[in-house]
Amino acid sequence: PPGRKVLIVYAHQDPRSFNGSLKSIAEEELRKQGCSVTISDLYAMNFEPRATRSDIADCLLNPEEFNYGVEMWEAYKRGGLSSDLVEEQEKVQEADLLIFQFPLYWFSMPAIMKGWMDRVLVQGFAHEFPNCYDSGLLKNKLALFSFTTGGSREMYSKGSINGDIRYLLWPIQHGIMHFCGVKLLAPHICFAPEYVPEEKRREMLAAWAQRLKTLWKEEPIDCSPEWYFK
Amino acid sequence: PPGRKVLIVYAHQDPRSFNGSLKSIAEEELRKQGCSVTISDLYAMNFEPRATRSDIADCLLNPEEFNYGVEMWEAYKRGGLSSDLVEEQEKVQEADLLIFQFPLYWFSMPAIMKGWMDRVLVQGFAHEFPNCYDSGLLKNKLALFSFTTGGSREMYSKGSINGDIRYLLWPIQHGIMHFCGVKLLAPHICFAPEYVPEEKRREMLAAWAQRLKTLWKEEPIDCSPEWYFK
Repeated sequence: PPGRKVLIVYAHQDPRSFNGSLKSIAEEELRKQGCSVTISDLYAMNFEPRATRSDIADCLLNPEEFNYGVEMWEAYKRGGLSSDLVEEQEKVQEADLLIFQFPLYWFSMPAIMKGWMDRVLVQGFAHEFPNCYDSGLLKNKLALFSFTTGGSREMYSKGSINGDIRYLLWPIQHGIMHFCGVKLLAPHICFAPEYVPEEKRREMLAAWAQRLKTLWKEEPIDCSPEWYFK
Repeated sequence: PPGRKVLIVYAHQDPRSFNGSLKSIAEEELRKQGCSVTISDLYAMNFEPRATRSDIADCLLNPEEFNYGVEMWEAYKRGGLSSDLVEEQEKVQEADLLIFQFPLYWFSMPAIMKGWMDRVLVQGFAHEFPNCYDSGLLKNKLALFSFTTGGSREMYSKGSINGDIRYLLWPIQHGIMHFCGVKLLAPHICFAPEYVPEEKRREMLAAWAQRLKTLWKEEPIDCSPEWYFK
């Protein structure tokens, strides 16, 4: 609906890829609805994934033993984070919905996107004990993981060799987003687009466009162990 | 035992950290046993976590649409990978045992280590369909994930808010190492070292040193869904 704000965090090296198309479809459809859409195109930004001392723009609390989590928490509170992180945090703060678009790498997101999680979702900004899970600091936001796989749907079903695809969603949906208070829309998974005919790929793109039309009417999933492991 | 080769892939920014101590203890104890120990100190190496075109030293197979997995597979086969990856692959090839030492970031390994997985474990080198899981190309090797957490053991038990710690081991132990044919020794987890008294931390370090003394007698875990989700 008009006025809603969406941040798409996108990790593919090539805009001509299937992931690039999925990203563009979301951008286009959501703008058509009147939403304001921001993209963090991580590879194009050459986004830094390493969590280092450079993420703190000013002095360290304890230069004797570098503790990343503690230093980032303190730096956030005094406004001492590096500018690339401040920018990403502003985008997150503005957004009603975060869409993560990526190809699955090793049962998870590519390192460049994991680095975004490690560096942007700082304590004090995204969570601050006891404000985690349902009272996380990013509550009232939604997130949706949209990704492609190499393996087929059958290979990611319960009892098959890769296990249920939901098993691998636990750390990223529950452990990251839910931890920060964000509610999860059902993941959007395109299985093995590289191994299906062109026509099937077009159907997958059309299905994503179709889903986006009624996205704002969707209820979040019940992000409990049962959803993942029942 | 004398002659065994160990690669420690280590991701902490500060050698004076608790993770740094765990790494040094393993290095020392294993050398004392006569093992040859190599360390990949990822932050000290400023290891590149991003999966990009630069990982292919020569020409692309298809510059029209960059497909990282396919390009890396082809580059591996013709000897066209970037030199930092060739070096890491040689270390892996040599090793009987891989130890991954890191602080848990967001229910997983830090991005710099995820980048090591994404970039080093190339198709053709670590797996090549149908050579995956028990017939993965790195079979006859062992791996051990040794990590520290922020949360306590109770917070990572079944039924508690973070869920069983084993849930989050599925993507990294099964989805990465087992996929490549590597057998898993039981993980070594130090819960919440930051929040316990100094004496307890010393006990944790001593327990790790103690475990290492008989490490080569350990049987691998049964890396099946039951181990993770039973």
